[in-house]
Amino acid sequence: MEAYLDNSATTRCMECVTDQMIYIMREDYGNPSSLHTRGVDAEHYIKEAKSFFAKNLKVSEKEIYFTSGGTESNNLAIIGTATANQRSGKHLITTAVEHPSVLNTMKYLEKQGYSVTYLPVDRDGIVSLEALKEAVCEETILVSVMYVNNEIGAVQPVEEAARIIKEQNKKTLFHVDAIQAYGKYRIFPRRAGIDLLSVSGHKIHGPKGIGVLYVDERVKIYPILFGGEQQRGLRSGTENVPGIAGITEAAKECYRGLEEKIEKLYLLKEHFSDGIQKLDGTRINGRTGRDSAPHIVSVSFEGVRSEVLLHALEEKGIYASAGSACSSNKPAVSQTLQAIGTEKGLLGSTLRFSFSFETTDEEIDYCLETLTELLPVLRKYVRR
Amino acid sequence: MEAYLDNSATTRCMECVTDQMIYIMREDYGNPSSLHTRGVDAEHYIKEAKSFFAKNLKVSEKEIYFTSGGTESNNLAIIGTATANQRSGKHLITTAVEHPSVLNTMKYLEKQGYSVTYLPVDRDGIVSLEALKEAVCEETILVSVMYVNNEIGAVQPVEEAARIIKEQNKKTLFHVDAIQAYGKYRIFPRRAGIDLLSVSGHKIHGPKGIGVLYVDERVKIYPILFGGEQQRGLRSGTENVPGIAGITEAAKECYRGLEEKIEKLYLLKEHFSDGIQKLDGTRINGRTGRDSAPHIVSVSFEGVRSEVLLHALEEKGIYASAGSACSSNKPAVSQTLQAIGTEKGLLGSTLRFSFSFETTDEEIDYCLETLTELLPVLRKYVRR
Repeated sequence: MEAYLDNSATTRCMECVTDQMIYIMREDYGNPSSLHTRGVDAEHYIKEAKSFFAKNLKVSEKEIYFTSGGTESNNLAIIGTATANQRSGKHLITTAVEHPSVLNTMKYLEKQGYSVTYLPVDRDGIVSLEALKEAVCEETILVSVMYVNNEIGAVQPVEEAARIIKEQNKKTLFHVDAIQAYGKYRIFPRRAGIDLLSVSGHKIHGPKGIGVLYVDERVKIYPILFGGEQQRGLRSGTENVPGIAGITEAAKECYRGLEEKIEKLYLLKEHFSDGIQKLDGTRINGRTGRDSAPHIVSVSFEGVRSEVLLHALEEKGIYASAGSACSSNKPAVSQTLQAIGTEKGLLGSTLRFSFSFETTDEEIDYCLETLTELLPVLRKYVRR
Repeated sequence: MEAYLDNSATTRCMECVTDQMIYIMREDYGNPSSLHTRGVDAEHYIKEAKSFFAKNLKVSEKEIYFTSGGTESNNLAIIGTATANQRSGKHLITTAVEHPSVLNTMKYLEKQGYSVTYLPVDRDGIVSLEALKEAVCEETILVSVMYVNNEIGAVQPVEEAARIIKEQNKKTLFHVDAIQAYGKYRIFPRRAGIDLLSVSGHKIHGPKGIGVLYVDERVKIYPILFGGEQQRGLRSGTENVPGIAGITEAAKECYRGLEEKIEKLYLLKEHFSDGIQKLDGTRINGRTGRDSAPHIVSVSFEGVRSEVLLHALEEKGIYASAGSACSSNKPAVSQTLQAIGTEKGLLGSTLRFSFSFETTDEEIDYCLETLTELLPVLRKYVRR
């Protein structure tokens, strides 16, 4: 048996997605910038995609942009607004538990003369709204907070954060990295006070190499890539039409009957968490209830090294993650686990299990049974 | 009958490309940064791809990077080396006939305090090597010259340019935008004195949304996107594995029996050019022989507006391009045509016809016959 429990690293592409992409690559392969029918046909897919995302997010079509993925969406949102608004100030705010595509972009901007405040989080990985309130000042041009943390599934209070930010400085922009949240939550950025929102295709059973960035039309933002001025000049380069159609198909499918799917995910998560808690020497990092993301469980296993357990599970056909997959297979110490105060001894003993709509109860049972078998053996081996 | 003669805008994906991509998206869908088998399997495609491009370009695997396309490859090459080497000088050189992803990137850098020299070209669109020699100075950190011009198919003397550059200043880097040349020419950057080389997937019957950048390992270059530090830190973001495998399949196929394919393309081009020259009031921009690219013919039609002819051809199932498709469907005046000294009256009367390995003699005949029919009618209409 196999159990792919690494869906926060990447997901399997849905068949409706690949069917659509193949058709476009083989038949409707025109360049959307071409003035003839073949171009117009290709452009039609982009219009359809914008129309879907606009309705889905309750924003307007001209506020939807396509990028090469979550990393580029986050980079464009942060660098693009920072450079465009630096006359209003050079202060940025984010949290200590963001994805590297936010944290390292902030570090890059620090080198460019911006100052960045990294907000602390509590034991559950939830950002301190008090600290946020104190941090926002006259010079703050942008706050970036992720919706769902990719390592422990913490859900940030983004709507409260938005309210606090705008109360403190109504000119401060608010970016939300929704890469682990989109497809799991109904998100309405305008209503929620979010000015920019990042989405990635391959986390929602869509293709790799494609992302969405919502940008409120009032936001002043500069491009980070220059060229043919496609996408109203904000993102040059021939649009990845099959990718754009692919992420749209995937998003449509995710939001079809969303509430039932999420209920099923929470039941899986409860099932898994209950099973984990019955095992000796395990600890779940972050919350496990309905106030956490439905698809991510981070577990520390006392006395077992992550890589050892990861590979032992892998031999049984179970795929999980040591930390997150986003740190380019360097077994670095997790910033999120450190930020929530995980004991040093457990930092290197933690795995992330992440589910998708395709995950079954049988896979969860199989994973729990396998852990029950493996853990005593691995611990014995380590102690010798 | 149909004739798709807009292959320099974009090409149809080969079936071997889509087959490979589907398989990866549905079966080998892992994240290459994941430490388990699914990740390793995904990474394998990247290794294969690097190995192919390294052999094909006669460079080493660690010098191959994957981007989201030609625009990003050009941006990374230019901005990445400019920022990394600015201590050695802030002077850049390019030509007046580059693609917007080079020209607009240069304009961006001008705003950042760099100075840029735009080299003139002759009537055939060939860059002046005299001017290049004069322009390279102590402060010159980068020269960027395209291999094949996308509008008129001019082939630049890149090897001579490389020699001149290195003679003048051996620290000056040389970037070649080979987006219209790769798959048509055997290019060996190291031997040719090229330090960075850009390639795009969708111009060679591969997927959109993927590009290659060759970077000589001795080149100092900074990333332009920040995140999980994939690809040795130069290009963060989960690798687009299906796209990477797709561009590799396409490139393999292009270089299989290349010489025969190119011979066939030149025969098509000669056939087409001969036919065009028999028509009244037409002029081919640039060269038509073996010293020009095998797949691009730019034709000015006296007394006919480009858009009118484009749409008249389109009604007959013939797809060509007014200028290039890279200027995001704004009917802007072509910089290349201006640079080669095209008469004002012909600037708005020019179409580009571009062929691929899939183009047939029948399509060329059909296009020539249709032009023979249409031109007198359209001219009569315009004169009234």
